[in-house]
Amino acid sequence: MLRLLFSSRPGAFAGYEAALAEALAEAGLDAEVREDWPAEEVDYILYAPVGRLRDFTPFTRAKAVLSLWAGVEHVVDNPTLHLPLARMVDDGLERGMVEYVAAHVLRHHVGLDAHVVNPAHDWAPRLPKLARERRVTILGLGALGRACAEALAGFGFDVTGWSRRPKTVAGIRCLSGPEGLAAALEGAEILVTLLPLTQATESLVDADALARLAPGAILLNPGRGALIDEEALLAALDSGQLSHATLDVFRKEPLRKDHPFWQHPQVTVTPHIAAETRPRTAARVIAENIRRHEAGEPLLHLVDRAAGY
Amino acid sequence: MLRLLFSSRPGAFAGYEAALAEALAEAGLDAEVREDWPAEEVDYILYAPVGRLRDFTPFTRAKAVLSLWAGVEHVVDNPTLHLPLARMVDDGLERGMVEYVAAHVLRHHVGLDAHVVNPAHDWAPRLPKLARERRVTILGLGALGRACAEALAGFGFDVTGWSRRPKTVAGIRCLSGPEGLAAALEGAEILVTLLPLTQATESLVDADALARLAPGAILLNPGRGALIDEEALLAALDSGQLSHATLDVFRKEPLRKDHPFWQHPQVTVTPHIAAETRPRTAARVIAENIRRHEAGEPLLHLVDRAAGY
Ligand SMILES: NC(=O)c1ccc[n+]([C@@H]2O[C@H](COP(=O)([O-])OP(=O)(O)OC[C@H]3O[C@@H](n4cnc5c(N)ncnc54)[C@H](OP(=O)(O)O)[C@@H]3O)[C@@H](O)[C@H]2O)c1
Ligand SMILES: NC(=O)c1ccc[n+]([C@@H]2O[C@H](COP(=O)([O-])OP(=O)(O)OC[C@H]3O[C@@H](n4cnc5c(N)ncnc54)[C@H](OP(=O)(O)O)[C@@H]3O)[C@@H](O)[C@H]2O)c1
Repeated sequence: MLRLLFSSRPGAFAGYEAALAEALAEAGLDAEVREDWPAEEVDYILYAPVGRLRDFTPFTRAKAVLSLWAGVEHVVDNPTLHLPLARMVDDGLERGMVEYVAAHVLRHHVGLDAHVVNPAHDWAPRLPKLARERRVTILGLGALGRACAEALAGFGFDVTGWSRRPKTVAGIRCLSGPEGLAAALEGAEILVTLLPLTQATESLVDADALARLAPGAILLNPGRGALIDEEALLAALDSGQLSHATLDVFRKEPLRKDHPFWQHPQVTVTPHIAAETRPRTAARVIAENIRRHEAGEPLLHLVDRAAGY
Repeated sequence: MLRLLFSSRPGAFAGYEAALAEALAEAGLDAEVREDWPAEEVDYILYAPVGRLRDFTPFTRAKAVLSLWAGVEHVVDNPTLHLPLARMVDDGLERGMVEYVAAHVLRHHVGLDAHVVNPAHDWAPRLPKLARERRVTILGLGALGRACAEALAGFGFDVTGWSRRPKTVAGIRCLSGPEGLAAALEGAEILVTLLPLTQATESLVDADALARLAPGAILLNPGRGALIDEEALLAALDSGQLSHATLDVFRKEPLRKDHPFWQHPQVTVTPHIAAETRPRTAARVIAENIRRHEAGEPLLHLVDRAAGY
């Protein structure tokens, strides 16, 4: 019998227990998931960086760490981790992200706020432009960025995507590498940041980057807080170079009550809800990865430790 | 040379003049559009029911009335009109409607308002459900309703559509006729009304209809104001049967300043902006219809005067 250790926030296991049992049974695996296996008996570690586990040294027979989160910046550099690390790529999480991004992009695209908050009761028709006249750039064309790019392009938006390695995605203008960044940002009216946080992406959206966007652009950051230089962001909002920022992720979460983002009239704060791993779909991904590893097949969604994601 | 009369709101012609000239030339038509041709010299009437023209009797040689609007309820019953009447089906208008409907559906689906208006600065993550778990019903599966249904289904929503005559649309549960209405409404969490205003659809969304929706449902009406029984709507909002209504169209427009909809905390008023005929694309539809009629081909988008749309 395989012993699977579940290590996440206290209380999180309750939401996963049944889904994992079902998915493991469906995958034909004889396995038991618990939060308290002795370290040296554990076969696989199901991991989110919000539990107590920081030192992987005692897991002498463990075969892999399977992240419950899509973002692995809190574990990828852990010097005690010598096991293969797979990240979470979950259909439920992906759909959640696509729905969040589309909702917020369309909100700004059609100018929804003017009607949601209209205390003067103004009847003021204005013809918005069409999606095909709206330039949207997505930084990151991974599992999430690509799904968002495709959904927005399907809607008619003029979409550019940017990744580390060159890519081809039908209907999307794909740019890549440091040399493609300026062109990806140039003239974008809505910028969506769906990069992982790595040394190369930290504060990538700085004053220079923001200055390349179309005047009055919108920033939507459901990636990671530290992708953005906060001072440059506030300055761009105040100068009018950006007209709005909708931020789901922050350098420190929850965002502290006195942070200027809460007060700023052109900032919308959402509490890290863009997308969440959904136990039912995520459990299947985990079961499938264990099944593969047990069968000698390569793990899916392996993290490249050198690249940091 | 064909003489085309442009009859709409004063000032509207300026936005159409160049687009019409270009589209007519592209269609190989020798035609001139003016707002002041003598009635008896006019070949075609480009019409919106917001100009002075009400009496079609003097247009003795006119061959057709080409509506600039998608909705024809203000002209379809005109007893002086014996000419063929074509309505506007415009790609720009259709895309505008799809974008408006998607924006407002996603707004409610992801619970956007709680973050846009969050004066207490609450960090309160809640996991929204996915589109595939959300039942959306669209009343009307015409040019606009169908495009919206397809876009929302493409997004993953569980979409039901309802029309007068039976229809089949891939990915949409299609119901029709008076006998299909109850099932279309039953349990819908978001109801979108994209019906034309006719004798059969006036006040179709009444207390009975609203009671069939899922408790706490959302109403989105970009169709026509008179599709809705206003008192029943306000009662359903106050009882909690509806949690929100977003209304783009009203029995009388502009909506008067003291109308309860403006004040109601669960109502969003948008000023008839869901979709507008776009001169560039609409001009091509008009030119194509004139070309067809001149070539002896049937007109596109002919209104069924008996059905009223
Ligand atoms: N807010 C939320 O609720 C939430 C939920 C889940 C995830 N997230 C965030 O979303 C991020 C993206 O997730 P994912 O699943 O799409 O990740 P992924 O599949 O690993 O994709 C990452 C993308 O970023 C690109 N990238 C990485 N480093 C880059 C660099 N230096 N320059 C240019 N492009 C670079 C990658 O390029 P290549 O394609 O060339 O590798 C790839 O396209 C996660 O890391 C996480 O931080 C947020
Ligand atoms: N807010 C705005 O800015 C805006 C802009 C443009 C249009 N509109 C409104 O949108 C409406 C729809 O436009 P459209 O171009 O989609 O019209 P359309 O192509 O004529 O489609 C009308 C749809 O409603 C259905 N229908 C009509 N009477 C019905 C009845 N008694 N029972 C059940 N279904 C019925 C039709 O059924 P069949 O398919 O069986 O004929 C058809 O599916 C317009 O009439 C206009 O009022 C609003």
